[in-house]
Amino acid sequence: MPAELVEKMLTGDQRALARLVSAVERQSAEVPEIMQRITPMLGHAYCIGITGPPGAGKSTITDRLTAYARQQGKTVGIVAVDPTSPYSGGAILGDRIRMQQHYLDAGVYIRSMASRGHHGGLSRAAKGVIKLLDAFGKDLIIVETVGVGQTELDIVAAADTTVLILVPESGDAIQTIKAGIMEIADLFVINKADRDGVERLQRDLQMMLHIRHASDGWCPPVLGTQAHKDIGIVELHEAITTHRRKLSETGQLATRRQQNRRQELLDLLQQQLMATLTAQFDDGEAHSGLLEQVEEGTVDPYTAAQQMLVENDDLWR
Amino acid sequence: MPAELVEKMLTGDQRALARLVSAVERQSAEVPEIMQRITPMLGHAYCIGITGPPGAGKSTITDRLTAYARQQGKTVGIVAVDPTSPYSGGAILGDRIRMQQHYLDAGVYIRSMASRGHHGGLSRAAKGVIKLLDAFGKDLIIVETVGVGQTELDIVAAADTTVLILVPESGDAIQTIKAGIMEIADLFVINKADRDGVERLQRDLQMMLHIRHASDGWCPPVLGTQAHKDIGIVELHEAITTHRRKLSETGQLATRRQQNRRQELLDLLQQQLMATLTAQFDDGEAHSGLLEQVEEGTVDPYTAAQQMLVENDDLWR
Repeated sequence: MPAELVEKMLTGDQRALARLVSAVERQSAEVPEIMQRITPMLGHAYCIGITGPPGAGKSTITDRLTAYARQQGKTVGIVAVDPTSPYSGGAILGDRIRMQQHYLDAGVYIRSMASRGHHGGLSRAAKGVIKLLDAFGKDLIIVETVGVGQTELDIVAAADTTVLILVPESGDAIQTIKAGIMEIADLFVINKADRDGVERLQRDLQMMLHIRHASDGWCPPVLGTQAHKDIGIVELHEAITTHRRKLSETGQLATRRQQNRRQELLDLLQQQLMATLTAQFDDGEAHSGLLEQVEEGTVDPYTAAQQMLVENDDLWR
Repeated sequence: MPAELVEKMLTGDQRALARLVSAVERQSAEVPEIMQRITPMLGHAYCIGITGPPGAGKSTITDRLTAYARQQGKTVGIVAVDPTSPYSGGAILGDRIRMQQHYLDAGVYIRSMASRGHHGGLSRAAKGVIKLLDAFGKDLIIVETVGVGQTELDIVAAADTTVLILVPESGDAIQTIKAGIMEIADLFVINKADRDGVERLQRDLQMMLHIRHASDGWCPPVLGTQAHKDIGIVELHEAITTHRRKLSETGQLATRRQQNRRQELLDLLQQQLMATLTAQFDDGEAHSGLLEQVEEGTVDPYTAAQQMLVENDDLWR
């Protein structure tokens, strides 16, 4: 069945795409076969990660970037892993109505993903959906996540260009943003740049960027936008294009994508090893003596883990 | 050296405690030995997890609960894994000054932990610090985290009683709070309960609690506080005590702690297995053919993972 669906999807069938996306989202047993079949088709799309605190205007920027890309004749896929995004049913009604222009455009495919019920598999599922949209032939994929958790960080870290959106008021919010985002963002946007506090935020950002080690020879620009008035969107698009060109020319795009694929393999191995371990623990077969002692608190987990690993020195070779 | 430090710490030496806490926080190679030595002393302290969005008043509640517990003659340990907490250097100066009463009290030990630079080990480090405070003899340990990420969720999930703090304005913030927290919170507190929007928040909470499956026979109460005026703190303390009594009487306290220890063992095994795997990948020795094909994008990670695991069917037995 996946074979047929994938074939249909590759001819441009949106319904087949939607069914495959659902299969990936619920982590169906068919995912490995689906991924195997679409692998030869991957690598065409350019993926932009948009992240930032709630209320920063991530969805409005996604909206305006999408409109601009459509004007340029590019097709767009949107993956919203953000409970505050209007694409995910959050935010105020006005936003959601505004977004509907894209829902009616066959050149835009929108998928919102709930952040609950994934049992740690959200990042894997989101990356799978991005691949499907790539195989489907989208030119541009925008993945929008709220920038607070490790999962969300993992997702945007897999994008080709990562954009962190802040607003003047979010000076203090910077603290609550996952620190790692500051280190992986390729572009910084101060949205609602007509408000008070822009200078302070800019100063804070510049200070942080100064600390950041520019090992890749890219100094992340800080842009100002007023997305709701469409101000600064063309400049943002240009900055993304500049970053893209630089990644391509230096070979870093290929390197980044290689690293992402390696990471994906590690994640899968980890998932499957842990599933094996947990099943054995639940069976109560292997190492049950030690496990029980850990549970009772008579043996510390460090000693137990060490002993279990020594007993299994043929673990992985 | 850990032997000596642990011995000193167990006699009540705060400086030895601080050095051990630092060792745990930087994940020193001595951690296994430290943990092994303190394991027989664990289980005395009761651990309360306090979580919620930035601005909900978590630190003020921690502050007032601490003051109340001190009046009752109990010693307190505070672990702040919250970048917005005054204990961690965040928040406004006034808060920090207010907290200083506790810094001068030998019956209170406060440790703030940065959320950056832990490379995924923050949860492990925080749990280690909680254990040290337990072994040191603290009666009550309060761990404060901002309730947005999986790591923070993991930390409060390990507490005996988990309290979620909300404010009337955080109606929309509920969306951005890690969904899982709703499911693990044992008590809900609406702080700043004199403000508008209390009824709506209460209604939303009750609806969510209604959905929640009360498999453990505990229906989480929703309390109102005005922590900055010390209103509702005694009631909160009583609710925590009621929950504690119920956990003890039903044997669930022991079960929860057993499950936490099992989870800790699984986490350690996962960490060490992944370290082995990553090192092998980096060496370029094992499976290098497959790994390269995945990196190039010619073999999908699912197929590769499956093949690697089949080749290692002696992996874990």
